[in-house]
Amino acid sequence: MRDAYHEELDSIGDGLVEMARLVGSAIGRATTAILDSDLKLAESVIEADKKVDELQHDLEARAIALLARQQPVATDLRIVVTSLRMSADLERSGDLAQHVAKLARLRFPERAIPHDLHSTVLEMGQLAQRLMAKAAEVIITKDVDLALQLETDDDEMDLLHRTLFQHLMDDRWRHGIETAVDVTLLGRYYERFADHAVAVAKRVVFLVTGEHAADLQPDIQPEIGAAGAGEGA
Amino acid sequence: MRDAYHEELDSIGDGLVEMARLVGSAIGRATTAILDSDLKLAESVIEADKKVDELQHDLEARAIALLARQQPVATDLRIVVTSLRMSADLERSGDLAQHVAKLARLRFPERAIPHDLHSTVLEMGQLAQRLMAKAAEVIITKDVDLALQLETDDDEMDLLHRTLFQHLMDDRWRHGIETAVDVTLLGRYYERFADHAVAVAKRVVFLVTGEHAADLQPDIQPEIGAAGAGEGA
Repeated sequence: MRDAYHEELDSIGDGLVEMARLVGSAIGRATTAILDSDLKLAESVIEADKKVDELQHDLEARAIALLARQQPVATDLRIVVTSLRMSADLERSGDLAQHVAKLARLRFPERAIPHDLHSTVLEMGQLAQRLMAKAAEVIITKDVDLALQLETDDDEMDLLHRTLFQHLMDDRWRHGIETAVDVTLLGRYYERFADHAVAVAKRVVFLVTGEHAADLQPDIQPEIGAAGAGEGA
Repeated sequence: MRDAYHEELDSIGDGLVEMARLVGSAIGRATTAILDSDLKLAESVIEADKKVDELQHDLEARAIALLARQQPVATDLRIVVTSLRMSADLERSGDLAQHVAKLARLRFPERAIPHDLHSTVLEMGQLAQRLMAKAAEVIITKDVDLALQLETDDDEMDLLHRTLFQHLMDDRWRHGIETAVDVTLLGRYYERFADHAVAVAKRVVFLVTGEHAADLQPDIQPEIGAAGAGEGA
């Protein structure tokens, strides 16, 4: 009975890793789509998000069934509840990758991103993808040190986000308001994507160390957008 | 034993209602703060979010303790799991109200919002507050019809959001890039706040009707920002 139970628990973990891989791939491809103005690629990212949503529903159903059938307590209960939260983070990350792709589609055949922001956006996309790859690895290995690395990576994302805002606020900005709006939203999508990857990793830390979530809460200061705008101003 | 159990369950419901009331008040006050450039009010909103976070932690701890002790199944289990999700929605709504307040603080003593957008932002803030008040009422009454009303209200929020983008995209826009960035982020905060209020109400519908979450999933199309920008362009 306990074996079947642990198999179920493992399969929930596998589902989380698969979700993380899919959304990591999605943010990478969405970034390429928006930089190259590649409509087909954008549409494939938009379409692929359904798979992420399905995985989440499936994972939630299994987690709830497991709660009902096995009635876990203590650590096991915490693992299941935390898995539900992680799946919500990953589903939301998928939405954000989809938003990037939808912005690419909306502006096609124009390029949403002006040439002088190309490298910053590319770096944000790559960093987002790396963060999610590390989050997946943290789920698999439960490596607390690796999980803590994601915070440092996230600082890097904040820096890139500020760079983006500095471009926007520069007096030499000549790309108009529409592009400024697109870039503002895009920056926010990457930043939130990174927040969710960090959140996933921190939830694993919480499971492993039992440290209180208050110290590990991810979403407390995501107003970098506004702050970045302020600093760039 | 079952009575103590239902008391605990009720107290979780009370906690959700209190959270909803606090974040509804927060978005209203944050809106006033940003429209009036009222630093003290902004800071009180920022400070008050701690209470929301505390309530969430408390509520989660109680929900997990209840799962461990009472091992509910079927509907009762679903109520507890759904409560955890609602508390996450409400905590995030609190963050968003806080972002509005932080933007007010960042721009103080300037006004972040130009005069010609004043009434649109006021309407968005009021609507957000009404949506959250209705969500609280839905938690209390479990009134499915009222819950469905929130979708119509949310359509109104989308319209307001588009109005905001139309202003931004108007050739006569003379407020510069910084304000465009602020307005873009602000629009997104209100829109996401409304999404979370709708999500809370829909989760109640799911509990009452047992209809599958796929039809009721809230966060599937929050790219109104970009779409709105497109339509405004």
